[in-house]
Amino acid sequence: MKIDDNFYMKLAIDEAWKYQLLTYPNPAVGCVVVKNGEILAIEAHKEAGKPHAEVNALKTAYLSKYPNDVLKTKSSSHDIHDYLIRNHNNFFEDCTIYVTLEPCNHIGRTPACANLLKELKPKRVVIAHEDINKEARGGCETLKSANIEVSIDCMKKEAYELLYPFIKWTQGTFIFYKMAQTLNGSIDGAISSHIAKAYVHTLRDKIDLMLIGGNTVRSDKPTLDARYIAGRAPNIMIYSKNKVFDTNIPLFKVPNREVIISDDLFKLLDYKFIMVEGTYNLMDKLKEKIDYLVLLVSPKIRKGVNALNDLDIDFKIVHENYIGEEKIIYLKRKG
Amino acid sequence: MKIDDNFYMKLAIDEAWKYQLLTYPNPAVGCVVVKNGEILAIEAHKEAGKPHAEVNALKTAYLSKYPNDVLKTKSSSHDIHDYLIRNHNNFFEDCTIYVTLEPCNHIGRTPACANLLKELKPKRVVIAHEDINKEARGGCETLKSANIEVSIDCMKKEAYELLYPFIKWTQGTFIFYKMAQTLNGSIDGAISSHIAKAYVHTLRDKIDLMLIGGNTVRSDKPTLDARYIAGRAPNIMIYSKNKVFDTNIPLFKVPNREVIISDDLFKLLDYKFIMVEGTYNLMDKLKEKIDYLVLLVSPKIRKGVNALNDLDIDFKIVHENYIGEEKIIYLKRKG
Ligand SMILES: [Zn+2]
Ligand SMILES: [Zn+2]
Repeated sequence: MKIDDNFYMKLAIDEAWKYQLLTYPNPAVGCVVVKNGEILAIEAHKEAGKPHAEVNALKTAYLSKYPNDVLKTKSSSHDIHDYLIRNHNNFFEDCTIYVTLEPCNHIGRTPACANLLKELKPKRVVIAHEDINKEARGGCETLKSANIEVSIDCMKKEAYELLYPFIKWTQGTFIFYKMAQTLNGSIDGAISSHIAKAYVHTLRDKIDLMLIGGNTVRSDKPTLDARYIAGRAPNIMIYSKNKVFDTNIPLFKVPNREVIISDDLFKLLDYKFIMVEGTYNLMDKLKEKIDYLVLLVSPKIRKGVNALNDLDIDFKIVHENYIGEEKIIYLKRKG
Repeated sequence: MKIDDNFYMKLAIDEAWKYQLLTYPNPAVGCVVVKNGEILAIEAHKEAGKPHAEVNALKTAYLSKYPNDVLKTKSSSHDIHDYLIRNHNNFFEDCTIYVTLEPCNHIGRTPACANLLKELKPKRVVIAHEDINKEARGGCETLKSANIEVSIDCMKKEAYELLYPFIKWTQGTFIFYKMAQTLNGSIDGAISSHIAKAYVHTLRDKIDLMLIGGNTVRSDKPTLDARYIAGRAPNIMIYSKNKVFDTNIPLFKVPNREVIISDDLFKLLDYKFIMVEGTYNLMDKLKEKIDYLVLLVSPKIRKGVNALNDLDIDFKIVHENYIGEEKIIYLKRKG
């Protein structure tokens, strides 16, 4: 295997994917710090409001050589920025920084990463994808103006796939379909492990809206909250022509939740980040609109109903991770 | 992400998996060379008769610093060993070598890796799994006797999964079931890409025996050779109570191929490395005997018959790779 810029950038991209969708409304971003050929840090942005990938990686890199430095006690983005600018002592001058997205250039909830890097003067910054956010753009120019060598478009295609949900929810609506199945496509009965369920609840905690079919609500009477992680229950749109439901079921009893009953899918465009749970009826209706299929696969073969046998859709596998002993596959609809 | 021994060993393990099953009768082995914290090589053993993982990695590591050295022109294991022992010039003294299997200690088709390492005197050798081959064992002791620091059992569980097919075919018979399906489990029609088919033909070229069901032979009239890679067509056992077949079909016309027609599955124990192709009838008969399910998954949803709906089997996902745009998932039967 070749050990080159692509190799290090791939480490950054894979790390970022661990937090894909969980950084909403921010993009998933990864960052690797290499000092004289030695990898010191592989980090990512984990959640909106928490430090950007670069800040996490610069902190980890510094601490890898000075494990007892007081930097260890700093956790807010502002404090880490501030501390590193005062105390870096040219530590980063022989470093190459790999980052999957152009470092931000605006002062938002946290100070700008481009500005921090400008002060730390790494030898080189390798960027996979330019920023698509007009407010944040200009990071490259800031770095170049400080005579830092900048390389762009390293693994740009892979970084674009990583950025894709962010691009969609920034410019309109990102819709993903969550399914759980066995190896052979069966969806009958209890399929997912507790770890996989906790992941689904983490997603529910982040989304703007969950879409579910009326028949599923009537037959399964699901609560559709985020109790496994003590998270926020999402607002719900029940897709149904028939507006009559038994409002005594738990779904309607969750505090601070909005429930809409509608058969107008245009309403979805009022939201930015939507998760669909349900069976293939909804998939059929939505097949031109979904961006991702997030498929949880349990490694077993079971008798049972196959959810998706009446459809004809092509996907591209953009990533996959493990969730405990199960797989999660991120599939992007083609076309 | 933590950058420690496990991190480097994981790179070695993942590299080795790229050649899993293809190294028969040898084990799949990976090796990483790190010099002063810098990764210089991530290599694997690729095929029986070709250099071991350590030899490939040591060569690549040396060439990464001296790209025009005459070592570039050496490709046989013997020549690389010989050249490195004469010309290493203490290059490896500040290196850590990560290897997924204890370096071999016997002189076989190639000189022993433990002996080569003993001469090159790396600072440390980290080993994931001890050798299970009695003839090859003793590598650790050889290294320790040369005052090389040796760490063992780093990622041993993962290395055991990597080694598992080798353990099985060394001690008896390793049987894997090859399936190709869509995301939703459909097996109808043409599913796999040309790249995936070439991979299957590469496997056919390596195995001792292919097992196939009589009904599949009668209805599909497959040739079951390795023409995509101009490889050796495997010997075939057709599982069938009825011994009458139309011997004018191409399967029977392949030169230098043995075809057995039998319903005695005990015959399988006469072979070491067996691939099963076919539908769920054979899976049902073999389910207590198969070691792996090698599943090629095409990222599309299609109408069609689902192969595995009448079974109830649990697996562990031990690895997965991409084959072009498709996935290959290695599943080990639990139980
Ligand atoms: Zn930033
Ligand atoms: Zn060897």
